[in-house]
Amino acid sequence: RTMATAARKSLTIGLIPADGIGKEVIPAARTAIEALGSDIPTPKFVDLIAGFETFTRTGVALPEETVEVLKNDCDCALFGSVSSPSKKVVGYSSPIVALRKILDLYANIRPVVSVSPNPNEPSKVDMIVVRENTECLYVKQEQLTVGEHGKEARATRLITERASTRIGKMAFELALARPRKHLTVIHKSNVLSVTDGLFRESVRAVPLQDTRFEAVTVAEQLVDSAVYRLFREPQIYDVMVAPNLYGDILSDAAAALVGSLGVVPSVNAGDEFVMGEPVHGSAPDIFGQGIANPVASIRSAALMLRHLGYIEAAKRIDNAVDSVLREGQLLTPDLGGTAKTREVTEAIAKRI
Amino acid sequence: RTMATAARKSLTIGLIPADGIGKEVIPAARTAIEALGSDIPTPKFVDLIAGFETFTRTGVALPEETVEVLKNDCDCALFGSVSSPSKKVVGYSSPIVALRKILDLYANIRPVVSVSPNPNEPSKVDMIVVRENTECLYVKQEQLTVGEHGKEARATRLITERASTRIGKMAFELALARPRKHLTVIHKSNVLSVTDGLFRESVRAVPLQDTRFEAVTVAEQLVDSAVYRLFREPQIYDVMVAPNLYGDILSDAAAALVGSLGVVPSVNAGDEFVMGEPVHGSAPDIFGQGIANPVASIRSAALMLRHLGYIEAAKRIDNAVDSVLREGQLLTPDLGGTAKTREVTEAIAKRI
Ligand SMILES: CC(C)[C@H](C(=O)O)[C@@H](O)C(=O)O
Ligand SMILES: CC(C)[C@H](C(=O)O)[C@@H](O)C(=O)O
Repeated sequence: RTMATAARKSLTIGLIPADGIGKEVIPAARTAIEALGSDIPTPKFVDLIAGFETFTRTGVALPEETVEVLKNDCDCALFGSVSSPSKKVVGYSSPIVALRKILDLYANIRPVVSVSPNPNEPSKVDMIVVRENTECLYVKQEQLTVGEHGKEARATRLITERASTRIGKMAFELALARPRKHLTVIHKSNVLSVTDGLFRESVRAVPLQDTRFEAVTVAEQLVDSAVYRLFREPQIYDVMVAPNLYGDILSDAAAALVGSLGVVPSVNAGDEFVMGEPVHGSAPDIFGQGIANPVASIRSAALMLRHLGYIEAAKRIDNAVDSVLREGQLLTPDLGGTAKTREVTEAIAKRI
Repeated sequence: RTMATAARKSLTIGLIPADGIGKEVIPAARTAIEALGSDIPTPKFVDLIAGFETFTRTGVALPEETVEVLKNDCDCALFGSVSSPSKKVVGYSSPIVALRKILDLYANIRPVVSVSPNPNEPSKVDMIVVRENTECLYVKQEQLTVGEHGKEARATRLITERASTRIGKMAFELALARPRKHLTVIHKSNVLSVTDGLFRESVRAVPLQDTRFEAVTVAEQLVDSAVYRLFREPQIYDVMVAPNLYGDILSDAAAALVGSLGVVPSVNAGDEFVMGEPVHGSAPDIFGQGIANPVASIRSAALMLRHLGYIEAAKRIDNAVDSVLREGQLLTPDLGGTAKTREVTEAIAKRI
């Protein structure tokens, strides 16, 4: 799951803070990357726009230019967070959902890991949610009709063998690289026997194509009971693979186990491109106060670099983050502290 | 939300234990109802079959006769739990999903309440998940096609104004009857702007038709962040109303807050019929050991009676359950104890 890094002399990183606290945490991620020095090729940052504010100003949530620059000039990108309109707004459509599709970033990889008080102790919570990122209800094929009893709306939920197989492969690959080598397939095939049946079958068929994966033990959970057990027995999970919407819900649920959404990173990964993204939203309630937790974004930068093959650089960032969290002196309010985004970022950068 | 009770001389209750521990806990609910004595009309119980075991034996998961007896002879019913086949089984379809639709039990009402150590203290967790019960992905309209890249499966997610409005009314009614009078509308309209947009709009429009509901404060949450906040700040919720699948996941998630799925009851309610159902599944891993928690089923019986207008009878059951749980001497293994289903049931029946 690493992309060839040898030929790279410089590293062009698109920065799309988008809305709300995205504007506070993406600069923090940049600071962390800059602190790496010669562990990576000299980074070049390109500022790009997208989001609800962009929509309000320009009439498009994801400008064509942003997509073109990402495709043609960038090696990778970091995305902040988008605000959702509080009423239906004609013409608005989520730019992050669109980007995942346009760049074919088919895997949303969300590691949820707690920091143990002692660096030699294993983490209590240590799982990766691998979320299919291009289909399910996110294809956004919706129709509205007016019937006898009023309005009727229909959405299509698409599950394909191809997308389920490739996300399955990604999940097996990730599981294989972990000590426990355990994979839980999430579905709701007791109701959705055709769509979730196909997802389940496709994922389970992956080891038939690649015998390395026979080393991975496989379990299954219905999505409702998966969320329940996530809270009761988080230790049963190692890698989880899920269709898009279940993965969305599960990763937020898992974030509650590690203290805050503010520490959970993700990458949107495809075969050609990778985009880091904190799992949290745009948090309009705290935007502008300088108290957003930069950890999720900084960890997303590490995850992105790891995905590009810069393993040592990624480790340096992760270790710096862990050490600041473990010390517990500089925590943002979501973690019970009073520190500012800037202070936490500086402390992390110093340790990188 | 109560059905006329005056004319009722006897109360005919259909019992459908279905699979697994359903067979252990539905008899417990019956014992609790029998302990009520003259608080309710003399109950008459009718044993009915359905479930995966029924399917394996007879080829149908929900026999026509079960439906007919429920429709023609029963005032209400109690449903246990169904096992899901571990592989796709041609011709099998969940009988509980079918019953909800056939009997038009459009509201799935799931109160999640913790028992406070002191009976005069308020419960720490005290919310009701009101789940739409007839549509969303549960319409089970699925197709499989074979395209260029292999199999493609599609499911339809249906959201109608009619169903959203009536579940909205039910939710407002329930919220109005509670001290906090607060309703949270759950959706994902940042992605599903048409279907979840319609759900949200329809629910929010309910107070325009009935000004009593203006006393209810209304909030909204995206389903992913709703699950996250459920764990972090359960006290923000009073009544939640959600489309079918989100309600399914949310109610399991909420169950984790009160110690066990084994204590969370529900009713499937329509304008003509009501069916109690524990929220837990058939738990094949513990079936046959006599250690299933009977509380969810017993509370479901109380909820069913409350819905029929037997408020005092319902309270007697609930108080008996609370007192046994509060005492903490007789708890089944899911709550950390070693008691048997039978012992817990007897203790509750004695206090009724
Ligand atoms: C903002 C929203 C469209 C998005 C999603 O649902 O994918 C977010 O919740 C996420 O998890 O990245
Ligand atoms: C058994 C299954 C079909 C059912 C559902 O999804 O509704 C169950 O999970 C529930 O919550 O009652």
